[in-house]
Amino acid sequence: MEAFVILVEPKYAGNAGAVARAMKNFGFKNLVLVNPAFSLDEDECRKFAMHAQEIIDNAELLNSFDEALEKVDYMVGTTSIESRDDKHHLRKTFLARDFAKEIYKIDGKVGIAFGREDYGLLNEEIKKCDLLVKIPTSDEYPSLNLSHAVCILLYELFVCKYEPREVLLADGREKEKMYEFFDELLDAINYPEYKKENTRILFRRVIGRAMLSKWEYHTLMGVFKKAIQAAKRNKQ
Amino acid sequence: MEAFVILVEPKYAGNAGAVARAMKNFGFKNLVLVNPAFSLDEDECRKFAMHAQEIIDNAELLNSFDEALEKVDYMVGTTSIESRDDKHHLRKTFLARDFAKEIYKIDGKVGIAFGREDYGLLNEEIKKCDLLVKIPTSDEYPSLNLSHAVCILLYELFVCKYEPREVLLADGREKEKMYEFFDELLDAINYPEYKKENTRILFRRVIGRAMLSKWEYHTLMGVFKKAIQAAKRNKQ
Repeated sequence: MEAFVILVEPKYAGNAGAVARAMKNFGFKNLVLVNPAFSLDEDECRKFAMHAQEIIDNAELLNSFDEALEKVDYMVGTTSIESRDDKHHLRKTFLARDFAKEIYKIDGKVGIAFGREDYGLLNEEIKKCDLLVKIPTSDEYPSLNLSHAVCILLYELFVCKYEPREVLLADGREKEKMYEFFDELLDAINYPEYKKENTRILFRRVIGRAMLSKWEYHTLMGVFKKAIQAAKRNKQ
Repeated sequence: MEAFVILVEPKYAGNAGAVARAMKNFGFKNLVLVNPAFSLDEDECRKFAMHAQEIIDNAELLNSFDEALEKVDYMVGTTSIESRDDKHHLRKTFLARDFAKEIYKIDGKVGIAFGREDYGLLNEEIKKCDLLVKIPTSDEYPSLNLSHAVCILLYELFVCKYEPREVLLADGREKEKMYEFFDELLDAINYPEYKKENTRILFRRVIGRAMLSKWEYHTLMGVFKKAIQAAKRNKQ
C-alpha cells in the first residue's frame, strides 16, 4: 500500500504546510493538491511545514478530482457527515481505526482525499470514492480543522504498524521476591499483625499496576534491603 | 475523570485557538494556559477557535506550572522524547492509546500538560508529573505541532468512549439467500460449469468483506432477481 494524501481545493496555505508536517511526523511523503487557492511557495505554507519542506517541494498539483482518481488504484474519501439512515448508502462510512486496519491489505496506490475547509468533499466526488472514512467526533461540533483530520488519519495508519520499544519488565519471580522483602519489612517495623494481610494485598496491587522495569525493580529492592537492615538494627 | 488541557507557556495565539477547536470537536471544555505569550483576545486565537469561542472565554490563566499542579489530582505530562534507556525512569512513557484506556479509571481531576512549541515540558515540570504520555511518531521527525498533539490525545480519549451508530447488517441467512440467487444467475447466463466453483467462492469472499447493511442487501437482491428474470427470458 502506497498512500497519497490528496487535498481537494484547499483554501489556506497554512493548512497545506501543517498537513506536510503531520505527514513527515508519521512517515508519509506523497502530497497531492487539487486546485489549491494558494501557491505552495507562500510563507505561510513554508512556515507551518517546519521540517517537512521536501514534502512541499515534491507535492503534485492537479486540476481536478478526476485527475486524482487516475493517479490511484483506490480512492478513499473522508467525511465528517455520517448517514443516520442506512438507506443513504452514499455516505456509509468506516471509522478511522477500522479503516487503518483494513487498508494495508491493499496492494497498490491508495488516495486519501480531504475536502475543502468549509464544504468538505462534494457529493459528486464522494460518489467516485471506493470507500468512505469518518473520524469519530462530538455531535456538537463534528467539523475538524483540515490538518487535524489529516493528522489523526495518518496517526491511525502509523500506529497500526508501530512497534513500541521493548522495556524489560520485572518478571514474576522478581516480583515475588519483592513481596517477600515487603513482608520482611513489615516484620522488621513491627507492623500490626491484624493489618498485615490487607496491606500485603494492597502492595501487590500497586506493584502489579505499576509494571516495573527491571531497572526500577533493582533500584527499589536496594531501598527495601537498606530499610529492612535499618529497622532490624533499631530493634536490637 | 474530569480532564483539563493545560498549555504550558504557549507562544502562538493560533495554536491556542486550534486547541480550543479540537477540544470542542472531542467534547472537552476545560482549557488552562500557564503564562502564555499572547492574549486570548487576539484575532488569530479567535479565528482558529472557530465554533469553540466559549472554550476561549472560559479558559483559565495561571502563572506557573506549580499553580496548575494544585488545580488537579493527577498530572499527566506529554513528551515526544522517549528514553532509550530503562535507567532514565524520568522519561518512562505510556503510549497515548494505552493511556486513554487507563486514565478513565481515575476518579478526579486529571491535567494533561503540553509544553512549549519549541522545548516541550522542562525536566523540572516532567519530574512533577504522575505519568508521562507519548504519541508514537516517525523517528525522523517526532515533533508534532502543538495543536496536533492535543488533537490526537483528545481523539484517543474520545474514541475510548465512542459507541458507533449501529447499522443493521445482513445476517447469515440473508447472505446465503444471496449466494443462492448468484448461483441461479450463473445458471441463467449459462456460465461455464468449470468456472462456477471458483466464481462462487470469489463472490462469497467479496460479499463477506463488504459487510452489507440490510438496506444494501435488499437493494442488491432486487437487482439479482431482475437479472435472473431477464436472462431466463432471453433463454426462452
